[in-house]
Amino acid sequence: MELHLENLPKTVEIGRDADGVYFEYVDQRALPGELRMERTRDWRQVVDAVKVLAVRGAPAIGLAGAAALALWAAYAESLEGMRDAAEVIATARPTAVNLRWAVDRALAEVGDMPDGAGIAAAADALFSLVEAMQVEDEARNRRIGEHGAGLIAPGSRILTHCNAGSLATYYYGTALGVVYAAAEQGKVERVYADETRPVGQGARLTSWELARAGVPVTLICDNMAASLMAKGEVDAVIVGADRIARNGDVANKIGTYGLAVIAREHGVPFYVAAPSSTVDPRLEDGRGIVIEQRAASEVLAEPIEGVEVWNPAFDVTPARFITRIITEDGAFEPSALFG
Amino acid sequence: MELHLENLPKTVEIGRDADGVYFEYVDQRALPGELRMERTRDWRQVVDAVKVLAVRGAPAIGLAGAAALALWAAYAESLEGMRDAAEVIATARPTAVNLRWAVDRALAEVGDMPDGAGIAAAADALFSLVEAMQVEDEARNRRIGEHGAGLIAPGSRILTHCNAGSLATYYYGTALGVVYAAAEQGKVERVYADETRPVGQGARLTSWELARAGVPVTLICDNMAASLMAKGEVDAVIVGADRIARNGDVANKIGTYGLAVIAREHGVPFYVAAPSSTVDPRLEDGRGIVIEQRAASEVLAEPIEGVEVWNPAFDVTPARFITRIITEDGAFEPSALFG
Repeated sequence: MELHLENLPKTVEIGRDADGVYFEYVDQRALPGELRMERTRDWRQVVDAVKVLAVRGAPAIGLAGAAALALWAAYAESLEGMRDAAEVIATARPTAVNLRWAVDRALAEVGDMPDGAGIAAAADALFSLVEAMQVEDEARNRRIGEHGAGLIAPGSRILTHCNAGSLATYYYGTALGVVYAAAEQGKVERVYADETRPVGQGARLTSWELARAGVPVTLICDNMAASLMAKGEVDAVIVGADRIARNGDVANKIGTYGLAVIAREHGVPFYVAAPSSTVDPRLEDGRGIVIEQRAASEVLAEPIEGVEVWNPAFDVTPARFITRIITEDGAFEPSALFG
Repeated sequence: MELHLENLPKTVEIGRDADGVYFEYVDQRALPGELRMERTRDWRQVVDAVKVLAVRGAPAIGLAGAAALALWAAYAESLEGMRDAAEVIATARPTAVNLRWAVDRALAEVGDMPDGAGIAAAADALFSLVEAMQVEDEARNRRIGEHGAGLIAPGSRILTHCNAGSLATYYYGTALGVVYAAAEQGKVERVYADETRPVGQGARLTSWELARAGVPVTLICDNMAASLMAKGEVDAVIVGADRIARNGDVANKIGTYGLAVIAREHGVPFYVAAPSSTVDPRLEDGRGIVIEQRAASEVLAEPIEGVEVWNPAFDVTPARFITRIITEDGAFEPSALFG
C-alpha cells in the first residue's frame, strides 16, 4: 500500500482573484464519476449547494456557511441585512451544529469590529476568518487523526459508515483522518465502506476517496456489516458525527445507530471522530436533537402507488454504545467528553 | 384498510395448452413498474430465470425447479439424460435447499414408476406432481399464516426484510402469509419493508405486493430499521428463510442477521416463517450453509478504480436470536423445530 494523500482535493476553499472573492467546492453529486470543481461568487449558490448535498459533511458545511457569509459581505453595499443572510445560511440544514457554530463565529467576528467600520472592513475580516478556519480545520483533523491512530492496532480492518473523510472537511477528514493517520503508521490493512443508503456517501465518496488516497477499500451494503463482523473481519468501527450532546449521545448519518448495536454484539470497538465544535452544549442528551427528514425520492426514484417512504437523514446513537469519542483534544469516554 | 388478496398474481404456474406443457412466471425484474408474465416451454429458460432472479424466493424456485424437470420430460424423446438435467436445475442457485428438495421429489416421482413406463408417462406424472405442489404450496402458506397470526397482537406494526411474500411462492407467501392472515383478522396496522440492498426485493417487490393487496406499507432503507425500533414503531419482525439447520440457525437474505441483533436489543420478537421443507436435516448448524457470492455489479453499477466489493447474497442468523420459527406444522422455538 502506498499512500497518496496529496491526490485528495481541497473540498471547500475560499479565494480571491481579479474579479473578487470566490468560493470553490467539489460538487460531490458528480462523484465518483467526475471530480467537478465549482466556483461561485453568489452566497445563495453556496446555500443551495449545502441544501442539495453538493457540499455535505458537518465540518465542510460549517466552512461553507462561513464562506457564504463572507461572499455576502464581499458583494454587499452595507452591513444592513447581514443577520438575515446569516439566518438563511445557518438554517440551510437542521441537524449539523457546525453550520450554526460557524455562522455565529463569523457574526461575532464582525460584531467585535470597532463601531463605524464599514462593509469593506467586514468583508476583509470575514475572508481572513474563513481562511483561518480552513487552516484550523486541517490542523484539527490531523490532531484527531493522531489521537485516533493511537487506538488502532497494527493490521486493522476498519469499518466506516457514510463519509467523514477529506470530502466532509476542508481536507484530511475526521473518521477517515484517523484512518489516514493510522495508515501513515502502517497499521491499516483494509477499510470496509458501508454504501450508506439512500444517498450513497459510502459508495460514491468514501470508496472513491480511499482508493484515490491509496488505502485498500472494500465496499459493502449497509446490511452486510453484521455478517462481516460475525466472520471476525472487523477490528474497529469509526464514524463521524453531526451533533453530539453533553452526555455523549451522537447524531450521525442514518444507519450509525444500528451499526453501533451490531458492533457491541460482536465486541468490536466503536469510535466516533469529530471536532469539538460538534458538541452542542445546549443539549443535555440526544433526545433533543432535531432529525432532518428528507424526500421520499432519495429512497425510491419512481414512486409506487400506495407505498409510503420514511427517510430520516440521521439517527442518534446513545453514549453507552460508543467506546471513545475522538476530538482534537484527545480520545474520551463519552461521559468524560463535556466538562 | 380493505384487503384485496385477489389482486396478487400466481407467481409461478405450470399449464398445458394446444401446443403442450408450458411454465408461466412473473418476471420479477420488471416490478414494480410492470407486472410482466412470461410463458416458456424451454426448461433451460426456467433455469436461467432462476439464475438471473427473474424467479426468486425459496418456495418459488423450488416449484420452478420441479416445473423445469416437467418441461424437460414433456419435450424429451426418452428418459435418458433426465438426471443430468435435474442436476443442472438443482444447482442453479446454491443456498436455498427447496430447489434441491423439489428436484429430488420430482426424480423420486419418476423413480417410483413401474419399470418400462416411458417418457410420456413420466412427463404426465411430473406435470401432475407440479400441479399438486402448487396447491400444496398455497395450502401450506395459509397454514403458516394461521400459525403466525396467532403470535400477532391487534394493532401491530410489522417489519419485514426481502420478499417472503406471494411473489416468493406460488401464492400467498410465508412471512407475508403471516401478514395476510393477521390482516384478515384485522390485526395489522402497518408493514415496514426494508428495501433490501443490493437487489431491492423489499423496494421493488414487497412494497408493491403489499400495496397491491391493500396492506398499508412504508418503505425504509435497511439501515433505518434500528431507528424505527428505537422509536417504538415496530412490534414484530417477520422474515422468510432459504435454509434452516437442525439447531434452528437460519440462512436468509443478507441483512437478516443484523436485523435480528437489532430486534433483540429492542425487545422486538423476531419470527422466521418458512415451509418445513426449508429445514436441511443434513445440517447440524448454520456453519455448514454455503453462502452464494454474487457479482459486484449488483452493489456498484459502475466500477470505481481500486474499489473492491463484497456481495454475499445471504447470511446466517443463529437460533438464539429467533423467537419462533413458523412452519405449516406450528410455531416452534428454534431448538424444538427439528425432531
